[in-house]
Amino acid sequence: MHRYKISIEYKGTDYVGWQRQDNGLSIQESLENAIKQLTAEKVDVFGAGRTDSGVHALNQVAHFDLKKCMELDSIRDGLNQYLRPQPIAIINADTVPSDFHARFSAKQREYSYKIVNRRAPLTLDQGMAWVLHKNLNITNMKTAAVFFIGKHNLGAFRSVNCQSKTSIKTIDEVEIKNIDHNIFINVKAKSFLHSQVRIMVGTLVYVGEGKIEPKEIKNIIQIADRKNAGPTAPAKGLYLTNVFY
Amino acid sequence: MHRYKISIEYKGTDYVGWQRQDNGLSIQESLENAIKQLTAEKVDVFGAGRTDSGVHALNQVAHFDLKKCMELDSIRDGLNQYLRPQPIAIINADTVPSDFHARFSAKQREYSYKIVNRRAPLTLDQGMAWVLHKNLNITNMKTAAVFFIGKHNLGAFRSVNCQSKTSIKTIDEVEIKNIDHNIFINVKAKSFLHSQVRIMVGTLVYVGEGKIEPKEIKNIIQIADRKNAGPTAPAKGLYLTNVFY
Repeated sequence: MHRYKISIEYKGTDYVGWQRQDNGLSIQESLENAIKQLTAEKVDVFGAGRTDSGVHALNQVAHFDLKKCMELDSIRDGLNQYLRPQPIAIINADTVPSDFHARFSAKQREYSYKIVNRRAPLTLDQGMAWVLHKNLNITNMKTAAVFFIGKHNLGAFRSVNCQSKTSIKTIDEVEIKNIDHNIFINVKAKSFLHSQVRIMVGTLVYVGEGKIEPKEIKNIIQIADRKNAGPTAPAKGLYLTNVFY
Repeated sequence: MHRYKISIEYKGTDYVGWQRQDNGLSIQESLENAIKQLTAEKVDVFGAGRTDSGVHALNQVAHFDLKKCMELDSIRDGLNQYLRPQPIAIINADTVPSDFHARFSAKQREYSYKIVNRRAPLTLDQGMAWVLHKNLNITNMKTAAVFFIGKHNLGAFRSVNCQSKTSIKTIDEVEIKNIDHNIFINVKAKSFLHSQVRIMVGTLVYVGEGKIEPKEIKNIIQIADRKNAGPTAPAKGLYLTNVFY
C-alpha cells in the first residue's frame, strides 16, 4: 500500500460539507469518486478538518491509500481532470509514511473568517464573506480576542451538535486584521469544537457592535454556557487555511 | 442641477462591458436603470474607465446629474437596493462641483491584472483570474516591466478596435507582486489605449514563459507593431482598481 497526502482548495457553497452524508454531495465523496475514476481503486479519504456545509478551504489536507504506485504529478493533474467542473482542486500531492494520518497527525489547524464591513452588498465576493453593514469597533474586537488565547473550557463556543467528549481546548492564536472594508479573523489551534470559530466570530462581532464589552469574553468563557456567547457566524465567511504537521 | 460622483464595484463576467451596447446588458445601463427607479429621473451616467466585457472593477468612478437634491446615503443605499441581485454595488456617493467629469477630470487610473500560476484549476476565483499552468519567471517579468515606464508610442499595445487619435501614452508605474501562486500586475497611467493593459500582460507573460527576452520589450515598443507584442490576456483577470482626481 502507498499512502498519499493531498492539499485541496474548494468553494464549499454547494456542498453538504467535508464529510460524506446522505442528503447531498460532500467534498469527501467528490474526491473519492475522482480517485476511483483515476485509479480504479475504491478508497476512503481522510481529511484534517471536517468543514461544515458552505465552509471553504484554501488548504485542506487529506490522505488515502493506493495499491498501485503513481506519479505525484499524475495524481494531482488526473484528479483535477476528474473533479472538473466542480470548484474543488488538488493543489499538491505528496507521498507520506503509512503512519501519517491527515486528521490525527495534525499539530495545528488554522481557520480564517472574512467579514466585509460596509453598507454595500457583495459583488465579486458573493457567497465568500459575511457582509455586516453596521460599523464595527475593531479596536474593541482586538482587545476581546486576546481573552481567547490559552487553555479553556470552551463550552460556550460549541454547537449543540458537537460530539467532542471534552470542551477543554487550547487556542494558540487569534489575530484580527483589517484591510479597507475587509476584516479577517484568524484562529490557530491544535483542534476545534464544532462551530467553534463561527461562534467565536459571532461573539467578537457582538463586541464590535458594542453589545458586549471586550472584557466580558472572559466571563462568557468561564460560565461556559452557549447562550451567553454571540450568534454562529454564517458558514460562507469561513475558510480552512492551513494544517500544520 | 446637482452632480453626484459614485464609486462602483462590479463583477464584469456577465456584462457587455461598461458602455451601453445593443447586444447585451452593460454596467452603465444597469446603473441608469437603477437611478431612474430610485429618482424617477432619466440620466446619463459617465464613467472614468470604459471597461471591456468581462473586466471587473473594485473602484470605478462615475458621475450623473439630478434635478432633485438627495441625501448621499439614500443614493448609495437606494441604488444598491435597485441593483440587487446584480453583482454591481455602489461603495460610496458624493457631491461634486458641476465642472467635475468622471472621465475627463481623472488624473490617473490604476488597473490590476491577476494571474494564478499553478497546475490546479481555479475554485474560489473562477472567472476572476487568468490561470497559467507553466511556471513563470517573475524576475524576468519584473525586469521587462521597467521598460514600459515613461512616455512612448504604444502602437504595439492597442487593439485593432482602438479609436484613440494618438498612441502616444505615458505609463507612470508598472508593479509586479507575487503572493504564493498569485501574480498581480498593477499599471498606473493618466489614460490607456483599448486593451493596452491586457496586451502588456500577454507580452509580460511571454517574457515569463521565456518566449521573449526582457530587454526585447524595448524593441517591441520602438517598432510599434501589434504583431510583435504578446497575446491579449483574457478579460476575466483585469480589474479597474482606482481612479485618482
